[in-house]
Amino acid sequence: MAFVTLLTDFGLKDGNVGVMKGVIWGICPEAQIADISHNISPQNVPEAALILFRSAPYFPPGTVHVIVVDPGVGTERRPIAARIGEWFFVCPDNGVLTMLLERAEEERWPVDIVHLDRPRYWLPKVSHVFHGRDIFAPCGAHLAAGVPLHDLGTPIDDPVRLDLPRPRRDAQGWHGEVIHIDHFGNVTSNIREEHLGEALLKEKERFVVRLAGVEIHGLVNTFGERPPGELVALIGSTGNLLVCEVNGNAAKRLGVKIGDAFDALLPPLR
Amino acid sequence: MAFVTLLTDFGLKDGNVGVMKGVIWGICPEAQIADISHNISPQNVPEAALILFRSAPYFPPGTVHVIVVDPGVGTERRPIAARIGEWFFVCPDNGVLTMLLERAEEERWPVDIVHLDRPRYWLPKVSHVFHGRDIFAPCGAHLAAGVPLHDLGTPIDDPVRLDLPRPRRDAQGWHGEVIHIDHFGNVTSNIREEHLGEALLKEKERFVVRLAGVEIHGLVNTFGERPPGELVALIGSTGNLLVCEVNGNAAKRLGVKIGDAFDALLPPLR
Amino acid sequence: MAFVTLLTDFGLKDGNVGVMKGVIWGICPEAQIADISHNISPQNVPEAALILFRSAPYFPPGTVHVIVVDPGVGTERRPIAARIGEWFFVCPDNGVLTMLLERAEEERWPVDIVHLDRPRYWLPKVSHVFHGRDIFAPCGAHLAAGVPLHDLGTPIDDPVRLDLPRPRRDAQGWHGEVIHIDHFGNVTSNIREEHLGEALLKEKERFVVRLAGVEIHGLVNTFGERPPGELVALIGSTGNLLVCEVNGNAAKRLGVKIGDAFDALLPPLR
Repeated sequence: MAFVTLLTDFGLKDGNVGVMKGVIWGICPEAQIADISHNISPQNVPEAALILFRSAPYFPPGTVHVIVVDPGVGTERRPIAARIGEWFFVCPDNGVLTMLLERAEEERWPVDIVHLDRPRYWLPKVSHVFHGRDIFAPCGAHLAAGVPLHDLGTPIDDPVRLDLPRPRRDAQGWHGEVIHIDHFGNVTSNIREEHLGEALLKEKERFVVRLAGVEIHGLVNTFGERPPGELVALIGSTGNLLVCEVNGNAAKRLGVKIGDAFDALLPPLR
Repeated sequence: MAFVTLLTDFGLKDGNVGVMKGVIWGICPEAQIADISHNISPQNVPEAALILFRSAPYFPPGTVHVIVVDPGVGTERRPIAARIGEWFFVCPDNGVLTMLLERAEEERWPVDIVHLDRPRYWLPKVSHVFHGRDIFAPCGAHLAAGVPLHDLGTPIDDPVRLDLPRPRRDAQGWHGEVIHIDHFGNVTSNIREEHLGEALLKEKERFVVRLAGVEIHGLVNTFGERPPGELVALIGSTGNLLVCEVNGNAAKRLGVKIGDAFDALLPPLR
Repeated sequence: MAFVTLLTDFGLKDGNVGVMKGVIWGICPEAQIADISHNISPQNVPEAALILFRSAPYFPPGTVHVIVVDPGVGTERRPIAARIGEWFFVCPDNGVLTMLLERAEEERWPVDIVHLDRPRYWLPKVSHVFHGRDIFAPCGAHLAAGVPLHDLGTPIDDPVRLDLPRPRRDAQGWHGEVIHIDHFGNVTSNIREEHLGEALLKEKERFVVRLAGVEIHGLVNTFGERPPGELVALIGSTGNLLVCEVNGNAAKRLGVKIGDAFDALLPPLR
């Protein structure tokens, strides 16, 4: 079995995602293809990096993840392919792999990256503006079909990395920021359960989460612990600290946007 | 061949649908997966119930339908799996199967339901907020891979049922309500062709459909019988009585919403 | 391997696309199915024709493309299936194949078209309003499963053709119009690289593109040659002349719509 995923900012109207699937099947007919998202905000590489980081590890070993959020298409930016842990990645070299590379360092996963510089693995005619179709889909399909990573290009060890915002700790607690707002309006911060610490999580009721001028006292485990319409703070399914409105849309209610301050404070015991 | 479908309110932006596919392929690599819809209004179980009812029976016998519209995630609501007729269903126990269970009673289809209470069929780590990934996708994949339904959990016979609105008959005709507005703005009522009766359908021109203060005289067979811009009433592809604007959007034009009154009257012959 | 694609104006909310996949798998269980687009504007056959033309040839030989943008459903318009070049097409006879038929004439591809007039290849019960489910999906699945085209219906040689807008040449250059606006707001014209001529493309800096009262001097190869926010004109990935805003939305900025004038002028050398 060969699995390929697609993550782009192409939207679903114009047929470009379908075209990539056609190209993949032309090279690797047995590929099963899943869409991760095609609604990344146009040219938003950090957003794609986050979605990829949260999604990629849930796929079977050997899955090839093709990511095309590519503001630099047709310029000197390199097309690359990588093995990180048990998965393959094919994308422009623009930092979209940053969070996975960091996790690989933490978990001591193997990492191997090549510059896709061998046109014999691309479509015969390469446009200046649609490398998703002409380079990334074909190289992803060759990987899925079993071509070794090192056949596709020359090894590199200097992939572009994003400068991701990190939460800052002081005596009051953790000071982070909003890094994602999901379909339900749930607001994700870059403060993670590792930051709060296992011991502290046992004192969930002591935390105060501050966002958009509102303070939420205590963390819950899940939405259903509180009545509809109430704001709650909790650790989400990816380990990040969230603010949600039960059966509602917290982001709209609070008017928050990516980059807004998001604090998790721990007042001293009296 | 193993077929799995997904029906959620997750939207298509955040990668959560893709994650479920990754989990399914990790357990059942040969699964072919189709999306039914991921644009159910957030937490809208009745809407999901209707879309599921209309879609599920068109899939091959043995297809596993995974439905995750789950306002109660993380609370005491049960995760369940069911065989209804020739298909399997995996979902929270919140009434989303109601219409299929009613049809099963009418058609004397077999029904078998279990409470998914055996964590060895779930992901090793279960979050409080994403049971689609952690419980429903894995259990659906195990069913698709051939695990017997009764291995996944303990039989139950008291699934939650929705109290669905029923049309009411009086001397004037049928009084129903709007239960769905589709992508084209076509307005679906809960009045069905069975209600109108085969004999009466032969006198289609006698019916008067009343919606949002407008009266439409006579039923047509299809849109193309009338010029663009005209309002028509007809039996839709699922057997329900609809109001449509030919090549237009009836819902926007009439300003209707779910729950509005929708009547099909039969004036007496003179 | 059997590949099927779907291209409709159904949207992704109501489950109708999923239903077509269920019907296809019931007839051809090994079919791999890709979505081209389900966000064609309602009843917009020319838009579907363009998206199909750009997408279909990237799929493997033998792929069956099922297109359902069908304002005439239930009327006398014929359901048809065609072989054009190496691909199959199943759709209402409303002109959606026009651009592919023209290309077939240019490239001397084989063309073979039948009227789908044999109900034994349809679902047993055919509605008046959802032939995508009842006729087109089943016939597409039978083709994918290997049923010969001529078994499905009676040959015809008079498919409906759209009267597509053509660019006009005069002493100043080419006068075309806007035929598509994509997800990024890039504006596609019907002026193609063949029109501009290979020799002239070597003098890219001489061209003046005029759209919505704005003049863009010179063509670039790709977005990244200019800074974000600048308007550029270039040959897109399908060979058409585009106007784009680098990392922005040209269509919104210029307020253009389908059918607006789009000129590529070549001022005389002094």
